[in-house]
Amino acid sequence: MSAPRTATVLVSCPDRPGLVAALAQLLYGHGANILAADQHTDTEAGHFFQRIHFDLTGLHTDRHALETAIGEVAGRFEMRWRIAYGDRLPRMAIFVSRTDHCLYDLLLRHRADELPCEIALIVSNHDRLAGVAEQFGTPYHVFPITPETKAEQEKAELELLERSEIDLIVLARYMQVLSGDFIGHYPARIINIHHSFLPAFAGGRPYHQAYLRGVKRIGATAHYATTDLDDGPIIDQDVVRVTHRDSPADLVRKGRDVERLVLSRAVRAHLEDRILVFENKTVVFD
Amino acid sequence: MSAPRTATVLVSCPDRPGLVAALAQLLYGHGANILAADQHTDTEAGHFFQRIHFDLTGLHTDRHALETAIGEVAGRFEMRWRIAYGDRLPRMAIFVSRTDHCLYDLLLRHRADELPCEIALIVSNHDRLAGVAEQFGTPYHVFPITPETKAEQEKAELELLERSEIDLIVLARYMQVLSGDFIGHYPARIINIHHSFLPAFAGGRPYHQAYLRGVKRIGATAHYATTDLDDGPIIDQDVVRVTHRDSPADLVRKGRDVERLVLSRAVRAHLEDRILVFENKTVVFD
Amino acid sequence: MSAPRTATVLVSCPDRPGLVAALAQLLYGHGANILAADQHTDTEAGHFFQRIHFDLTGLHTDRHALETAIGEVAGRFEMRWRIAYGDRLPRMAIFVSRTDHCLYDLLLRHRADELPCEIALIVSNHDRLAGVAEQFGTPYHVFPITPETKAEQEKAELELLERSEIDLIVLARYMQVLSGDFIGHYPARIINIHHSFLPAFAGGRPYHQAYLRGVKRIGATAHYATTDLDDGPIIDQDVVRVTHRDSPADLVRKGRDVERLVLSRAVRAHLEDRILVFENKTVVFD
Amino acid sequence: MSAPRTATVLVSCPDRPGLVAALAQLLYGHGANILAADQHTDTEAGHFFQRIHFDLTGLHTDRHALETAIGEVAGRFEMRWRIAYGDRLPRMAIFVSRTDHCLYDLLLRHRADELPCEIALIVSNHDRLAGVAEQFGTPYHVFPITPETKAEQEKAELELLERSEIDLIVLARYMQVLSGDFIGHYPARIINIHHSFLPAFAGGRPYHQAYLRGVKRIGATAHYATTDLDDGPIIDQDVVRVTHRDSPADLVRKGRDVERLVLSRAVRAHLEDRILVFENKTVVFD
Repeated sequence: MSAPRTATVLVSCPDRPGLVAALAQLLYGHGANILAADQHTDTEAGHFFQRIHFDLTGLHTDRHALETAIGEVAGRFEMRWRIAYGDRLPRMAIFVSRTDHCLYDLLLRHRADELPCEIALIVSNHDRLAGVAEQFGTPYHVFPITPETKAEQEKAELELLERSEIDLIVLARYMQVLSGDFIGHYPARIINIHHSFLPAFAGGRPYHQAYLRGVKRIGATAHYATTDLDDGPIIDQDVVRVTHRDSPADLVRKGRDVERLVLSRAVRAHLEDRILVFENKTVVFD
Repeated sequence: MSAPRTATVLVSCPDRPGLVAALAQLLYGHGANILAADQHTDTEAGHFFQRIHFDLTGLHTDRHALETAIGEVAGRFEMRWRIAYGDRLPRMAIFVSRTDHCLYDLLLRHRADELPCEIALIVSNHDRLAGVAEQFGTPYHVFPITPETKAEQEKAELELLERSEIDLIVLARYMQVLSGDFIGHYPARIINIHHSFLPAFAGGRPYHQAYLRGVKRIGATAHYATTDLDDGPIIDQDVVRVTHRDSPADLVRKGRDVERLVLSRAVRAHLEDRILVFENKTVVFD
Repeated sequence: MSAPRTATVLVSCPDRPGLVAALAQLLYGHGANILAADQHTDTEAGHFFQRIHFDLTGLHTDRHALETAIGEVAGRFEMRWRIAYGDRLPRMAIFVSRTDHCLYDLLLRHRADELPCEIALIVSNHDRLAGVAEQFGTPYHVFPITPETKAEQEKAELELLERSEIDLIVLARYMQVLSGDFIGHYPARIINIHHSFLPAFAGGRPYHQAYLRGVKRIGATAHYATTDLDDGPIIDQDVVRVTHRDSPADLVRKGRDVERLVLSRAVRAHLEDRILVFENKTVVFD
Repeated sequence: MSAPRTATVLVSCPDRPGLVAALAQLLYGHGANILAADQHTDTEAGHFFQRIHFDLTGLHTDRHALETAIGEVAGRFEMRWRIAYGDRLPRMAIFVSRTDHCLYDLLLRHRADELPCEIALIVSNHDRLAGVAEQFGTPYHVFPITPETKAEQEKAELELLERSEIDLIVLARYMQVLSGDFIGHYPARIINIHHSFLPAFAGGRPYHQAYLRGVKRIGATAHYATTDLDDGPIIDQDVVRVTHRDSPADLVRKGRDVERLVLSRAVRAHLEDRILVFENKTVVFD
């Protein structure tokens, strides 16, 4: 978990010699002590990815100077980069509809200190789960959606999200399709849980599809939402064993456990700044 | 594992009261002692499935009388049924192309007494794996296939299989598509291993497809071959975790382990008479 | 899930021919329609186990007559048996201390209709989780335990449990050791979750033990409580992957997920009358 | 897999600022291009671990100069370190007794290019598996062991191993206990597969122990051999699900699959220089 006096830099760029040394030297020079680092080179694409988590306690300079220095190195190597500080918790919004298991799971994990964020608010197209929100003292905003009101309601949602300085949106079994415009405001910052092992059974009623096909494993997939429905970069997946004894209702029940696990792992990875997106795929550092 | 003086009956029929009692009473009346029984009712389809494994040592009558009696009960309840005796090992043919890991796996498991069958012969469209067959003393038959010779060669293969009294054909990474006519000779008696988690990545080069999509689990699927390619009744499936670090070659390597496990479990279940097929799905008793 | 007009019989006895036929015939004779049946013969011990789930809708007689008839067959075959009716939900008590994840999990699964029971009450040696109980409208009883008061408090607990007609006690991370006397009142009716892969790391602080040993998987074990601490019949187990990166705190976090899954699966199996205990081992039908 | 013109450095030392920069700078200065790097800090022990895999193609200097430079940095930071070059395959010896499944698995994986090593020879206390060795063209040496001859035979084995320049010994179900003296010659270079989920069921006949205890998962553990039997640093573990239906023979059968997977993963990790040992635990980089 992130501690107050730490920071994490995420970097990606075309692979080139000297990258690792340049960043390590820079941080050392500023008095930042590397606590963990992970890197990956996609040799097919010739692309380099790195995550560096470091301690700021001994910083000789200040954050502004550090960021300026990183920016200079980044310019030299054509890096895309971002930095997150441990003393600024990201702010999360959870979108739900009628199903509560993923919502409860996120709220409970947050309370158990598993998710380093503030759960700023919950958005729903129904008032059904308002009681759950209340139990955890989290603001609950209802935006009913019809084909006619959708554009307008999304606009209102976006205003709320912006006003609340939301960093991450989690679609915890939110049953509305977000518009491309909405998604465009939060690139790689909206995580959805799809209740199937994508790309199998994309679209609606995946457990029913799985039942009809007679599969022997069902799964769940957490991915970043993109304008291509069910086709965004996959963050995490898992499956559970099913047999001929399982009815469609059993698949739904067993699926809930996988959904919870996969969604919470993906959200946690995002909050710990362990994910980089590249060409519709993710690098997820351990 | 099946012992010489045992038999197994597999039964399926529309569900109706008295089914279980009728069969249990019949077997008891003939002096057959039930060792294991498993049943399943598909409540949506209203269909009943049962497997009874029993000891013949105390049989008052003979096999003919027993089968006649079962046939009578079966007629009364519109049952489809079949019986297998432990003193008659099923005869298996393995079809391969150039890849040897599934072939080795089946041969070694057979030698370790994991697969209750005789491996009568190996068929291939290449001579490449002849040496493996030789090591295990198994006849190896080469039938090169071209679009022109396919029909003729399949005919020759069918003659060989019939002459060799083959009960089960295992496609252990056999890279030729069998004709509908060929498959029709062995309904629910041809097991194929597909190197993906079907229905995801059906068709060719599934590991490459999986790599491009950026999935976090890859899998394998054992299914009965039908005329709908990659769409037959699924017998078993499993997956293994992959990460951004895995190249297409790594997926192939990790996939081999899953293919081996899934294929051998499916073959073993078939040989132990634990599988019933119903409407493109399988009931696989434990 | 159990429906009102169904019943389940669990039977175990020395193996003998005719057992299956006798019970199937009996049920058929009374007009009970078998919906599911599963049986197992422990060939080493020569012992037979069966679970029969049946529909009472067409019963010609009544429950008393049915039970009398089963009792007669049971006497003939030296069977231990019990019957459970779908219209009488078992009553469960949950024992907790300070940790809430298993408690929440059981309460939420119950509300999602995953656990066919009434959660009659919660017992704790602390008042800490009273708020959780209140959210779900479940009575919460506090019995503080000291070495001096233990005997007396257990007596009071037993009175409460008896008065509340409790069928099953679930120790959901209850951190007090129950006396042999207490356990003797509920043989094979107290389920405990141990946060390790027993028999590894029995005793206290299992995650810390696991961390020190450097294992690469940690697990959880649900078992019936017996007077031999951590040594009762195992109902279910599972593990999760850990690495050198995981601190003791990470093990605790990852372990919570396994504990929840394993405990809820075990409780569900018990409530569905799918477990038989024999010589410190369990038969758990699917 | 390691390519000819690459090298891997493994480093461990007390944690201190500047470590990462010092090594990265050094390699960059010599013209070595980092392909992959992974690091870990054990914050409890205050110890730092790193693996750097790099390309030597652009080396300005030579290997001697590079090693001298690393040695200097290592001295400054009290590092333990070693380097391995991709153009020098490690040489492996496999020790077996009567069981062949792990031996076959290693030989087949080696032939499928999964294990970057030379399998120099096989040692056994029996002649039983000589035929397998012959099939793969691998020298097979028999050293029968009795209590009287053990010391002498181990001496002969050590001479053979030294003469053959063996880097890694794999005990692939070798049923003799090696002496402390023998093990002392190959610290952290002898990998054993134990057929249980250690520390559960240490000692003999683990599957039988597991059967008697009635566990619901069985496992296997690959670990470095130390003088404390079954107590060396764990490299990898895994489990498989078992049920009441599984006889001791079934546990042995299911266990073979886990043994194969776990042992081969551990051997592969060692051969790819991804393992560091510290205080009876391992750091295994992905």
